Amino acid sequence: MDTRTYSPHIVKYIPFLYVVWADDLLSASEISVFKKAVTEDHLSPEEKKLITSWLNPKTPPADEVITSWKHLIDKSGVKLVESETYPLTSFSMKMSLPGHGEEELSDEKLKFIEINLGIQPNHYRHLFDVETQQVPKANFYDPAKIDAVLKGPHASYIDTFREFLSDPAFQWKISRDKDTFRPRVLEQVKLLASAGYGAMAYESRYGGIDNMPAYAGIFENLMFIDGSLTIKFGVQFGLFGGSIQNLGTKKHHDQWLKATGEGTLLGCFAMTETRHGSNVRGIKTTATYVRETDSIVIDTPGENDNKEYIGNALHSTMATVFAQLIVNGTNQGVHAIVVRVRDDDGNLIPGVRIEDNGYKLGLNGVDNGKIWFKNVSVPRENLLNRFGDIDKDGNYTSRISNPNKRFFTMLGTLVGGRICVAKGAVGGAKLALATAVKYALHRRQFNSGEKIQEDLIMDYPSHQLRLITPIAQTYVYHVTLEHMIRQYTDASETSRRKIETQVAALKALITDFSNKTIQECREACGGKGYLLENRIGDLKNDVDIFTTFEGDNTVLLQLAAKGVLTDFKSEFNSDSYGDILKLVGTQLGDRLTTFNPLFTGNTDKEHLFDPDFHLETFQYHVRRLTFTAASRIRRYVKKGIPPQQVSLNIQTHLLALGRAYGVMLSYEIFSGFVKTLEDEKMQFIFRKLGALYALHHIREHAAWYLEHGYISGAKSKAIRQRVERLCTELRPHVVSLVDGFGIPEHCMTAPISTN
Amino acid sequence: MDTRTYSPHIVKYIPFLYVVWADDLLSASEISVFKKAVTEDHLSPEEKKLITSWLNPKTPPADEVITSWKHLIDKSGVKLVESETYPLTSFSMKMSLPGHGEEELSDEKLKFIEINLGIQPNHYRHLFDVETQQVPKANFYDPAKIDAVLKGPHASYIDTFREFLSDPAFQWKISRDKDTFRPRVLEQVKLLASAGYGAMAYESRYGGIDNMPAYAGIFENLMFIDGSLTIKFGVQFGLFGGSIQNLGTKKHHDQWLKATGEGTLLGCFAMTETRHGSNVRGIKTTATYVRETDSIVIDTPGENDNKEYIGNALHSTMATVFAQLIVNGTNQGVHAIVVRVRDDDGNLIPGVRIEDNGYKLGLNGVDNGKIWFKNVSVPRENLLNRFGDIDKDGNYTSRISNPNKRFFTMLGTLVGGRICVAKGAVGGAKLALATAVKYALHRRQFNSGEKIQEDLIMDYPSHQLRLITPIAQTYVYHVTLEHMIRQYTDASETSRRKIETQVAALKALITDFSNKTIQECREACGGKGYLLENRIGDLKNDVDIFTTFEGDNTVLLQLAAKGVLTDFKSEFNSDSYGDILKLVGTQLGDRLTTFNPLFTGNTDKEHLFDPDFHLETFQYHVRRLTFTAASRIRRYVKKGIPPQQVSLNIQTHLLALGRAYGVMLSYEIFSGFVKTLEDEKMQFIFRKLGALYALHHIREHAAWYLEHGYISGAKSKAIRQRVERLCTELRPHVVSLVDGFGIPEHCMTAPISTN
Repeated sequence: MDTRTYSPHIVKYIPFLYVVWADDLLSASEISVFKKAVTEDHLSPEEKKLITSWLNPKTPPADEVITSWKHLIDKSGVKLVESETYPLTSFSMKMSLPGHGEEELSDEKLKFIEINLGIQPNHYRHLFDVETQQVPKANFYDPAKIDAVLKGPHASYIDTFREFLSDPAFQWKISRDKDTFRPRVLEQVKLLASAGYGAMAYESRYGGIDNMPAYAGIFENLMFIDGSLTIKFGVQFGLFGGSIQNLGTKKHHDQWLKATGEGTLLGCFAMTETRHGSNVRGIKTTATYVRETDSIVIDTPGENDNKEYIGNALHSTMATVFAQLIVNGTNQGVHAIVVRVRDDDGNLIPGVRIEDNGYKLGLNGVDNGKIWFKNVSVPRENLLNRFGDIDKDGNYTSRISNPNKRFFTMLGTLVGGRICVAKGAVGGAKLALATAVKYALHRRQFNSGEKIQEDLIMDYPSHQLRLITPIAQTYVYHVTLEHMIRQYTDASETSRRKIETQVAALKALITDFSNKTIQECREACGGKGYLLENRIGDLKNDVDIFTTFEGDNTVLLQLAAKGVLTDFKSEFNSDSYGDILKLVGTQLGDRLTTFNPLFTGNTDKEHLFDPDFHLETFQYHVRRLTFTAASRIRRYVKKGIPPQQVSLNIQTHLLALGRAYGVMLSYEIFSGFVKTLEDEKMQFIFRKLGALYALHHIREHAAWYLEHGYISGAKSKAIRQRVERLCTELRPHVVSLVDGFGIPEHCMTAPISTN
Repeated sequence: MDTRTYSPHIVKYIPFLYVVWADDLLSASEISVFKKAVTEDHLSPEEKKLITSWLNPKTPPADEVITSWKHLIDKSGVKLVESETYPLTSFSMKMSLPGHGEEELSDEKLKFIEINLGIQPNHYRHLFDVETQQVPKANFYDPAKIDAVLKGPHASYIDTFREFLSDPAFQWKISRDKDTFRPRVLEQVKLLASAGYGAMAYESRYGGIDNMPAYAGIFENLMFIDGSLTIKFGVQFGLFGGSIQNLGTKKHHDQWLKATGEGTLLGCFAMTETRHGSNVRGIKTTATYVRETDSIVIDTPGENDNKEYIGNALHSTMATVFAQLIVNGTNQGVHAIVVRVRDDDGNLIPGVRIEDNGYKLGLNGVDNGKIWFKNVSVPRENLLNRFGDIDKDGNYTSRISNPNKRFFTMLGTLVGGRICVAKGAVGGAKLALATAVKYALHRRQFNSGEKIQEDLIMDYPSHQLRLITPIAQTYVYHVTLEHMIRQYTDASETSRRKIETQVAALKALITDFSNKTIQECREACGGKGYLLENRIGDLKNDVDIFTTFEGDNTVLLQLAAKGVLTDFKSEFNSDSYGDILKLVGTQLGDRLTTFNPLFTGNTDKEHLFDPDFHLETFQYHVRRLTFTAASRIRRYVKKGIPPQQVSLNIQTHLLALGRAYGVMLSYEIFSGFVKTLEDEKMQFIFRKLGALYALHHIREHAAWYLEHGYISGAKSKAIRQRVERLCTELRPHVVSLVDGFGIPEHCMTAPISTN
């Protein structure tokens, strides 16, 4: 075949054809996109026939034909400019019409193919001669618009706050010595308080704006400054202030909330004990009501029953202490009491002992301490009495008679803290990803041996998988948490039950995700990622503990699974599997285990991108795991197996259910959100991020889906390939996607993110 | 059914029957174990008939029968003592023959069932009333004997060395400030050198014992002291000393090796540059021979072409500098030259600039620095000339004419460093696992609501999966590396080619494993794991960079894959896929893709434990990935796709192949080693560890095996269940297994590992 005889109409398609046949990139629906463009183009019937003949997957062009295209391309001397919005169209038109001006070289048909096929420079850059670029990026998407979507209704608060963070007091630096790091963080907390940020979630009479979602938003942004600051801020205003706000009543609010928000009253949240972390109901500290003095006496019974890891412990004047409340000799369960631990001069109150917890892996700007109480007496009024009180006659009263329910109602009001922890984890992932992406866009390593310039590491498929997949997850989790914080804020006490279950799953899922992501970012930056100056190291160490505090992830996932099993109706943590069965019993129908057989073998692109397919798949996973867990429980209960043994037998099953539920929930929220986006272009990229999230997670559990015949082997392979393909399709927009996180320039201080 | 009518012969089987039917624990081969014991027991035909009737999986006992057994057990008042070697046998005999003495209560049939079924207290502890224990452990295996197996032929060196580490100079403490940490580590290195440990791998005339395997053994043990010490030790004696030993000739050895081993001459290994890490061939530093002065001039061309991350840079007098050697205007490729960087007073040589790399995530006791050279002249003799030399007439000579081959031959001699890095990673995993296991054996959380004592966290299935699976992997990798270091030491120059490929895969696999394991240990210890005093934090941060240095894991896996593709014949890193094809072409037969169809659906225990099944499975994985990679390359080459584009297209494929190869290789070595163990009891537990390793890895890639029809869905599920089951079966021996690592008591300093 003589290549010189091709008309310009044919020539303009040749780079596309070459790229398409250089690798087996296209599915049937994609071939038809190509054909459609050719059919509708202004070509002669012979030209259409020839091009179409090269588009039949059953009779692909011969190797010689493909090689002849390559010669034609090489001979043309045209160079590929990757940073153009439509690089392949531009290349093809230059080749087809040499010597023509920029304006004439646009071609709508080619653009249509290029955008709809999602073939990207990564698929073909070494097929062509590439024009050397220093900063290769596409600016198809405006990061500010993406950021606006993420900020949502509280954009103005976030913008003002980000600006506020440019204060030199917040400039990040390496801090190794806790004794200088902690005072610095304390000053930062006070500075934030003085500007009103601490009180944002409180009512206006206490200095706030009663806006929990906005508070959660700024909380996440604090991670761009420093993890220790974020956590100390959260302890002071969210945990200590939040306990007064949510567990106390007006007398407590009036007394303490304003000063707490202003940072003039520092407090801590003393729940965890050395021997009891996850099992809070088992804590040993006692709060005994003494009628004679109308006071409550706080006591640490054994040497190892002290409070531990209490953030802000070395700076606090007050502590919200969780203890077994004993009234008239009866243990009424765990309650919270506000206890003064230091006097106005900062000296410990007699009977209180506080020790530094010492150096930790991260968060060394937070003063964690151990606290012991030896018969410390506080007024009866210090009991945070929203859900249980001691009346002036010394009798215990509560409007919630079931002690189990009462306990979980109290804990439930603190669920905002778990949402904030997850938001902080997302903030950490964002900063790490933005840093790693910026580095990958100027770091080059290896070349073809012929070219002088080495490849950007961002152009390696493994690097794209490593960084772009978590970028998609970050978007999904951001949207999910924004939704949850609004739900939580608006919820009634009863609907909070469901939200708690959901948050339990999400906190576990997201903090685990964030840790893995920051680790990937460290490795993706090689030795540079290991230098503290580049921030990823501290992010890694700070976020690490997010998987443990505010509820250990393993425990939370089981809590979530029990919620799913009982359709969110029962008390959490119920050890009675008989009770669970009663609630779940009616659901054990076929409905739980059927699925659409048409999905099983469908490997076409359209289908793999279909949110309905993703949703149905995640829902099937949850339904099926629910059904099998319930069936197992039923069998055990029939045989009289004790509850704790049932727990052990099905523990890993519940963990899988909790995780599957979290993934499903996130995707439900995200895909619902995407539908509400009015800008079509924005909706397009968000849908793509959602598809990558979904296919990544289906791929993670592919073995399970295969075992159950839900997907075929061919489909499993197709999903794996689609995940890689999607990463490549998002590659040109990767700068916009990380800039869309809205991290202020004054926070992007890692040298590798700027050089 | 009236339970009171059972004879003692029946009663003694009831706890076993109850346990067996309480969960669906048994496969067909296990039921037959039970039946065999019953058949051979001294029972009446009626008794045998009754018990056997309860052992038919097709007609399991009715729920009422099972419940009646439970009543009988509860009524007996017998308590389970988990720490007994055969707890269920002992329980059953006490129930069968109340009031009898210890000796009479042994029963060989029950013991036979208990040991062969592998049912463990974890499966049934809550079915019975449990006697409270403070330190529950079985001492069925003697840790010292396990340790002896691991130490192998260099036991005496290791033992002496461990004793030496009790010197107070090695006592671990928290070190935050690099300026006090580094001198301390330097003193420790000198102390080790003065005792002869630095020179162990050198010949006796240079103060050594010419024993590389023993050197690697003590290197691993150094991780029990501190990561910084391990790495600085490795830089001084392994990298700097190793470069003189392996790349230099006798004149260099005579001049420097003794002083290096004694620690009186400190040196560094200057290869990596700021802009070139993975792609060493691309480094920019030049070494230009100047005939007039018969000297070599070292120069850093651009500001960012400096050497970076050079360990020991701030303490060194000499540096082995890797640079492009230019002789008579011709670049002869990368060579190593010994360059003096400081005078005897510690002042920098004119033209040399060294800067501190600053704080890192970990290893802050190592003085990493950046080095620039400005026309620094050294004598011609300082060229390490084993593989390439400049003669006295100023001409370049080498017995290896292919520059590519010459370069990789030079690098190949440094492969010992990669083995040591992997050994260090294994040492880190051992210390973290031992610490986490000790904690899990006294940390309790949650109970059944009826019992006072909470469950040990070691008894939760998720905790067993998390800790016992990596313990099995640690054993496999220990044995693998011991084998590799011996192979490496004994190898000829040509067979080293294969070893380099193998080590590339193993270094990547094992350092990645170690990081993940230490992370699991941190989380498994909750907040306590986050405190630096408990050591896991520093291990995490120190080992983190092992995935990057001495070869980035992503790059190494591709290197390994190319080695596999070419059957270890070609030069590494060849960019010519045409060359690869020539070598692999002959292998593209059916042999590569066939498998034994009898394996596909077999879910029986015997089969799942069969090393032949494991090996065949791993080999199939490697064969199949090799075949498909080669097929893809063939297609691309036919179409004229340039090599670098082929690289990108198949990159993730090669990564999968590299990993699969590493897993196969480890298991081949380990299963071969287990056969050589003479003690049958020891062989039994090592086989179990091997089975857990194998099934864990098959499970990790279950989606792939399912896609290819290699295993059925039912088998995939069975494998998942077997992994959990194996963890539980190893649970009673978990203390022996971590004590078997041989970590000296003076190194187990974490408070949580002792309290």
